[in-house]
Amino acid sequence: MDDRFARGSALLDRIHAGGGAALIEALSDIAPDLARYIVEFGFGDVYARPGLSLRDRQLATVAALAALGTAQAQLVAHIEGALAVGVTREEIVEVIIQMALYGGFPAAMNAVDAARTAFAAADARGPATEG
Amino acid sequence: MDDRFARGSALLDRIHAGGGAALIEALSDIAPDLARYIVEFGFGDVYARPGLSLRDRQLATVAALAALGTAQAQLVAHIEGALAVGVTREEIVEVIIQMALYGGFPAAMNAVDAARTAFAAADARGPATEG
Amino acid sequence: MDDRFARGSALLDRIHAGGGAALIEALSDIAPDLARYIVEFGFGDVYARPGLSLRDRQLATVAALAALGTAQAQLVAHIEGALAVGVTREEIVEVIIQMALYGGFPAAMNAVDAARTAFAAADARGPATEG
Amino acid sequence: MDDRFARGSALLDRIHAGGGAALIEALSDIAPDLARYIVEFGFGDVYARPGLSLRDRQLATVAALAALGTAQAQLVAHIEGALAVGVTREEIVEVIIQMALYGGFPAAMNAVDAARTAFAAADARGPATEG
Amino acid sequence: MDDRFARGSALLDRIHAGGGAALIEALSDIAPDLARYIVEFGFGDVYARPGLSLRDRQLATVAALAALGTAQAQLVAHIEGALAVGVTREEIVEVIIQMALYGGFPAAMNAVDAARTAFAAADARGPATEG
Amino acid sequence: MDDRFARGSALLDRIHAGGGAALIEALSDIAPDLARYIVEFGFGDVYARPGLSLRDRQLATVAALAALGTAQAQLVAHIEGALAVGVTREEIVEVIIQMALYGGFPAAMNAVDAARTAFAAADARGPATEG
Repeated sequence: MDDRFARGSALLDRIHAGGGAALIEALSDIAPDLARYIVEFGFGDVYARPGLSLRDRQLATVAALAALGTAQAQLVAHIEGALAVGVTREEIVEVIIQMALYGGFPAAMNAVDAARTAFAAADARGPATEG
Repeated sequence: MDDRFARGSALLDRIHAGGGAALIEALSDIAPDLARYIVEFGFGDVYARPGLSLRDRQLATVAALAALGTAQAQLVAHIEGALAVGVTREEIVEVIIQMALYGGFPAAMNAVDAARTAFAAADARGPATEG
Repeated sequence: MDDRFARGSALLDRIHAGGGAALIEALSDIAPDLARYIVEFGFGDVYARPGLSLRDRQLATVAALAALGTAQAQLVAHIEGALAVGVTREEIVEVIIQMALYGGFPAAMNAVDAARTAFAAADARGPATEG
Repeated sequence: MDDRFARGSALLDRIHAGGGAALIEALSDIAPDLARYIVEFGFGDVYARPGLSLRDRQLATVAALAALGTAQAQLVAHIEGALAVGVTREEIVEVIIQMALYGGFPAAMNAVDAARTAFAAADARGPATEG
Repeated sequence: MDDRFARGSALLDRIHAGGGAALIEALSDIAPDLARYIVEFGFGDVYARPGLSLRDRQLATVAALAALGTAQAQLVAHIEGALAVGVTREEIVEVIIQMALYGGFPAAMNAVDAARTAFAAADARGPATEG
Repeated sequence: MDDRFARGSALLDRIHAGGGAALIEALSDIAPDLARYIVEFGFGDVYARPGLSLRDRQLATVAALAALGTAQAQLVAHIEGALAVGVTREEIVEVIIQMALYGGFPAAMNAVDAARTAFAAADARGPATEG
């Protein structure tokens, strides 16, 4: 279990600078085990798998969350994460536009709002944070 | 308009061998204009955009349809299309497993069924059809 | 309660010829009260309200079920019901095409399949069944 | 009809202290009949049914709204209601964590936010409000 | 393409007074082409089609967005648009109440909030803006 | 890792007689690791947690899958599982009827179909399989 947590935590920090600690902190009052599962299972088991690059994984997650339209805060976080592992801003905008075909235009419009927030956060951190 | 249709039709045939004609045929009795819009707008406008590779676009669509869980037939078709433009079977399985995190495990399980169908169809056509 | 059931049942029969009896029959082995609620509440309370025509109500339901993409059998039934209260086949196709904008193209394509089934059922019953 | 409204109103007040009045008030400017249906049908007909305890009903509703991810305000209200009829805070957290399996991790994370809000509201009212 | 944009832009302005310009402006920093597609395809191609009145199209969109429950801002905008092309406030409330049957009561309650916002915006602009 | 798999497998077999082996078998051609994660994480980590009874967990899952309406096969399996851990048929029907309030009536009707299939499977196995 420690291996899974350590591996997930390292990956989470690479995608979301300092994000592993922040995620655990945010859920710690109510559901600390949910944070642990996200680190161990989500990142330590799934994202850490070989066979698909981290860049492709973040692109896929941005696509899915944009189409679902039910997880705006997480979409912002994963767009920031996508930038950190080498997805370009242009590619993010492209995948969002494409999601209008599968999740509808309102979902794509709301994903543009998420991208605006994520791009501004990346701007605030400086260019070195984009992979 | 002719340009958009021609461009979309060529792209659709590249992704789904013969698929442009089949799609138009399938919708022609009831909603031929919906088929036309898919070709013109979906492929001629959106998929044809530079800024994201066709391979990445198909990966993103597979992710979104797997997470949504409401379009099984289209998921099969897009997995076949993903294979045709260079996504590997391993990458498709990886993105489906990852979607368990965003659409839940039942959605991922149903996407595995879609992959099984798509892989069998690709087997029946022969290895040359995978990009 | 009898009033609500009688009013709902009459309305259900007008929208779906013989449908009230068939619906109650179909759910009677497991959940007869669900059938009763559909008649009493769905039709007796909601559909029976003044302020929106029955024709508009069926059009709205077809739009919603097409966009949701999770209720194919009910979409077929409500397209048949829409025909029975005066929505034309052309109008149904129009609303389905429009739903590509809000539920995505796969949802619209699956709704075309539902329309094909419903139109064939209406053909089998003869032209007098369209309002 | 009066019986259904009275029964639903009493139940609503038991689940959400004063909630029946507040709900009717909140919808009264635009859609008073929607409030009446929630009381009569939702609570007077459905929640009042024997065969499943009120505690189990609230647990089921929390599960469903957490998985759907489209009704954050209602999820907060039903978590408060669950506490009022005997679901413990630990059980609510458990059902939310479990919903990560069916609605995805972002849905579960957002449900944790709803639980935090609901628990704080219950704290503000005092311990006597938990069943 | 210019024809499609001009036709869509005129229609968008009729539905949302000044809305075409505002929409393009709002998306122009990140995804100007998404705005262009909404105008060209959404309005120039789809909404401009004969075979379904603009009033019926707006009613259908309000129904779909209320049932989906994932596009609150767009629901507000389309309720305002519905008022502008002749749907009455009573009809909007009716279609929202009806959507409780297909999208659930929380979705209907949230759509009432959208209607309240849209009606207030229409009040602020004056009665001449309702069709 | 072995502990988690063993614990999950035992739990899965208790809920779905022989189900652990069948699940792994069903996914083994394409995505064996997805089956492993369901056993390890879904059952070994989540379902095995204290703080909520297995009976309550199955009831919650039936509620969520009925409301979502996108996982019919898994809903059948979890209704069978619910019966195996002590949820009664009446309680399952009650939770399904209740889900009409949150997922809409079509979702509840489709869940009744799932219950019919699950009840017939339980009948075929004999009464000893219900907990």
